[in-house]
Amino acid sequence: MYRSQTCGELNQGNIGEEVVLSGWISKLRDKGFVVWIDLRDRYGITQLVFDEERTSKDLLNSVRSLGRETVIQVKGKVIERASKNPNIPTGDIEVLVEQLTILNEALLPPFTIEDETDGGEELRMQYRYLDIRRNPVKNNLIFRHKVTMEVRKYLSDNGFIEIETPYLIKSTPEGARDFLVPSRMNEGQFYALPQSPQTFKQLLMVGGMDKYFQIVKCFRDEDLRADRQPEFTQIDCEMAFVEQEDVLNAFEGLTKHLLKEIKGVDIDTFPRMTYDEAMAKYGNDKPDIRFGMEFGELNAIAQHKDFNVFNSAELVVGIAIPGGNSYTRKEIDKLIDWVKRPQIGAKGMVYCRCNEDGTFKSSVDKFYDQEDLAKWAAATSANAGDLILVLSGEANKTRAQLSALRMELAERLGLRNPDEFAPLWVIDFPLLELDEETGHYHAMHHPFTSPKPGQLELLDTNPGDVKANAYDLVLNGNEIGGGSIRIHDKETQAIMFKHLGFTEEEAKSQFGFLMDAFQYGAPPHGGIAFGLDRLVSILGGQETIRDFIAFPKNNSGRDVMIDAPATIDEEQLKELHLKLDL
Amino acid sequence: MYRSQTCGELNQGNIGEEVVLSGWISKLRDKGFVVWIDLRDRYGITQLVFDEERTSKDLLNSVRSLGRETVIQVKGKVIERASKNPNIPTGDIEVLVEQLTILNEALLPPFTIEDETDGGEELRMQYRYLDIRRNPVKNNLIFRHKVTMEVRKYLSDNGFIEIETPYLIKSTPEGARDFLVPSRMNEGQFYALPQSPQTFKQLLMVGGMDKYFQIVKCFRDEDLRADRQPEFTQIDCEMAFVEQEDVLNAFEGLTKHLLKEIKGVDIDTFPRMTYDEAMAKYGNDKPDIRFGMEFGELNAIAQHKDFNVFNSAELVVGIAIPGGNSYTRKEIDKLIDWVKRPQIGAKGMVYCRCNEDGTFKSSVDKFYDQEDLAKWAAATSANAGDLILVLSGEANKTRAQLSALRMELAERLGLRNPDEFAPLWVIDFPLLELDEETGHYHAMHHPFTSPKPGQLELLDTNPGDVKANAYDLVLNGNEIGGGSIRIHDKETQAIMFKHLGFTEEEAKSQFGFLMDAFQYGAPPHGGIAFGLDRLVSILGGQETIRDFIAFPKNNSGRDVMIDAPATIDEEQLKELHLKLDL
Repeated sequence: MYRSQTCGELNQGNIGEEVVLSGWISKLRDKGFVVWIDLRDRYGITQLVFDEERTSKDLLNSVRSLGRETVIQVKGKVIERASKNPNIPTGDIEVLVEQLTILNEALLPPFTIEDETDGGEELRMQYRYLDIRRNPVKNNLIFRHKVTMEVRKYLSDNGFIEIETPYLIKSTPEGARDFLVPSRMNEGQFYALPQSPQTFKQLLMVGGMDKYFQIVKCFRDEDLRADRQPEFTQIDCEMAFVEQEDVLNAFEGLTKHLLKEIKGVDIDTFPRMTYDEAMAKYGNDKPDIRFGMEFGELNAIAQHKDFNVFNSAELVVGIAIPGGNSYTRKEIDKLIDWVKRPQIGAKGMVYCRCNEDGTFKSSVDKFYDQEDLAKWAAATSANAGDLILVLSGEANKTRAQLSALRMELAERLGLRNPDEFAPLWVIDFPLLELDEETGHYHAMHHPFTSPKPGQLELLDTNPGDVKANAYDLVLNGNEIGGGSIRIHDKETQAIMFKHLGFTEEEAKSQFGFLMDAFQYGAPPHGGIAFGLDRLVSILGGQETIRDFIAFPKNNSGRDVMIDAPATIDEEQLKELHLKLDL
Repeated sequence: MYRSQTCGELNQGNIGEEVVLSGWISKLRDKGFVVWIDLRDRYGITQLVFDEERTSKDLLNSVRSLGRETVIQVKGKVIERASKNPNIPTGDIEVLVEQLTILNEALLPPFTIEDETDGGEELRMQYRYLDIRRNPVKNNLIFRHKVTMEVRKYLSDNGFIEIETPYLIKSTPEGARDFLVPSRMNEGQFYALPQSPQTFKQLLMVGGMDKYFQIVKCFRDEDLRADRQPEFTQIDCEMAFVEQEDVLNAFEGLTKHLLKEIKGVDIDTFPRMTYDEAMAKYGNDKPDIRFGMEFGELNAIAQHKDFNVFNSAELVVGIAIPGGNSYTRKEIDKLIDWVKRPQIGAKGMVYCRCNEDGTFKSSVDKFYDQEDLAKWAAATSANAGDLILVLSGEANKTRAQLSALRMELAERLGLRNPDEFAPLWVIDFPLLELDEETGHYHAMHHPFTSPKPGQLELLDTNPGDVKANAYDLVLNGNEIGGGSIRIHDKETQAIMFKHLGFTEEEAKSQFGFLMDAFQYGAPPHGGIAFGLDRLVSILGGQETIRDFIAFPKNNSGRDVMIDAPATIDEEQLKELHLKLDL
């Protein structure tokens, strides 16, 4: 028996008891006549004491030389501390050690095992097993466990069945790139790792399972942006005999449950907003509604003068920065530089100060009088003391630029409070999205999403106008889930594939099994998938998913700890009937 | 809204209510003046009624032509049935339909959607989404969900944290063959899919997570035997600061909880047996102890006469078949033929009848007298009326042959009752196993298993004699879990790798990260992994794992429903820097 208790549980009630503890040496303070050790395990820290009066000389001397992170086992008596520490549960006691066994020596760790470590990202990843000993990472992993337990409990209590779908499936080159797995037993053939269990969960609905969920790894071989992982986890869900309203209610229920159980936050009803409204008001399909700064469209009230920049723009749009009139000219110039950075891409920015006395002072006073500017202020809901910032140009781009500026300023103004939770359903997404590079339309959600009733005909004439029964759940400016009502008949699915540029043969070879299944009595169905990594990090009050993944990969898709991917034996390649082609 | 209730919930209490139901047409009986439909969904069956008196003529006529498995929605009134069906929860009522909407047409299914279907295995797999509509498959999937929920609940309540480990890891060619995943971003390099999260869970212990579990897919690219899947699911567990006793107690607790919650079976303490004892008594390291028929070793009492077959054998061993004396000579000859089949491989079999009058009659009466045979009966615990069957030859082979015979006869005698549960810990496994083909030793459990204290030195002189802190949990003759106390120091791990034939370079390149980790304060640790597919099927009273997997693969590793693996585009190969080498 390595321990009678953990390092997190001894208190006043245990005084006088003989105990055995095991753990890591977190700190050692040697005052000469007395040595204290902070012994650490997952559950907490217990102070060990050795002193000249009560500890054998040999033990006291041997203890002094123990290094940090050495794994030890001690036997001793729980005693009351002279100087108590009210900040930890074990702060009233310490253990007077009688016996000490070194269970394992430890090299000096390459960074400090403290909440605030001196280790850089790369070093922490290389020694992730040491990083995990730090409270912030350890607590994130425990938090993730707590969230998934609650998700499973809620869904199971509500009649959802968790069903495992296969990981070795078939490549469907449409959409993101698949990771492929050569088959040794089927020469020249490949499995693919699933980008999601989409088709399988739909088949489960055809199979009558009615309510399905799965917390499942998914894989996308994409060039990684910051905070994207090649393998990521979804809470994948599907329901049969449902309309959009049923799905929204079911998963609003789940999200409310999580907010309540995990964060103690009660939210009555989640607001809803159409995609078009979100784009118009926030320039973004995942708006952070914890704060205002809504867009004011100024075309009607800014294109009537001789200011050609505005007059030639598809869209003139502004936001009011609360209290922004206090910014110096220099600060405003910095903001203008910020939006002109290539990542944002604005050509320039117009501003208008809203003075406390009700007058306005803009960078375009040459063109606009006080009456014009008062209308701008009304359109952007600007108050005295605010600063109005205005961008103009091609509509989509300008909205994206102003949205980025809005988020940046909110961050700077401390309006993005991680302890506040503002969920939002964004609904009525377009079915298709124009790829500006290729000029082709592709599915905004995925090819299995059903168009709104009666809009199928529009596909031929105005494909971009067709709306879908598709919805996203947004939390604090992050998309945490997205889904749709699916197509459940072969004919509609065939039309969709045609419009997405599939030949009949391609559709049949890649998704023939699904279209076949639709012919054998497919119920109406729909669902949603949550990004677990993102959901957990936002619930945890953070935005970096990597800190909530035990063993994440870096931006080149490498695991720097185990050094993967790696070269393989010639023999292995041969068995797979492959040759390198470098 | 597609339904106000499901097809499984209406009863007497709902009589008079207007309801909306949706589901599949399971059966349609047309008696001319009245038509009944059994409407089915996941939750049950509700009888719909249409008749000349109360149903509109148009509706009644249109209903007659509806095919099986058509998906419909109906609106109607719950009425009391004239002739009740006490076998189903909805058997007291039926729904008098007023409106019917066809939600989706259905082709005639290729096999009947009944508990006993006319569909063969291959056809059922091709149309798995229809197979899942059948109660046996549907219920197995729901049962699996129930088991995993209980596993998670128990482990989480006991302080275990579920932590996801990566799926894209590094190939370690030792052991079974890895599935490989070419990396596009890292030219010429490959990930491997994990055969188990073994090294990661050990790193989590080094990281101080203390108690870990994960229900996780694992992958082995092996030539598939019947009832093996290339992807399978484990309940993977690890604990720090534990000895073997702690691990056995923790997972005996889990297994007891499952037997109690899932099967209502109370088992006090699981028996334990050493590997050597299991091999001697049952010829098998996963004995089914629901019945006796223990081996009796006869060397001492059968090698003293002139019967050369026995005298030249390393082992002479028998079992007593309860009531076997009733077998005719012809039946016994058939058993002899059975053990001589190449799959079993015995050269012959000696038998001895135990007559009711206390006399014996054997096939080797020429050599053995009644006194000899009485000793055989005592050694095999044979009673009057039994039949003793004796095999002889090389010890290991003979044990395996007699074990196969024991299981076959128990099956025939109905001694393997699927409703009885007999768990058993088999402990003290050998550390190494001799590969008779290569003459090399390899790890019986895996290379991270620690030898029993003090036995490390034996590795040089008697490697086959070294015992490990390794254990299996056996249930009804199936290994449902296995684990060990791990090595937790670099030196011992290096010695193990050396004995397993790794060069220092190989050990470093494949497992350097683990050996490094051991230097930074690794706690003593150990764990276990359960085969979930097997566990669920045995708890479900069956032995075929395929029926408990939603979308299993066939014996060539193919998913015949989606037709995977499949060929891929030239473009995809090129991106992965690969060429086919067929």
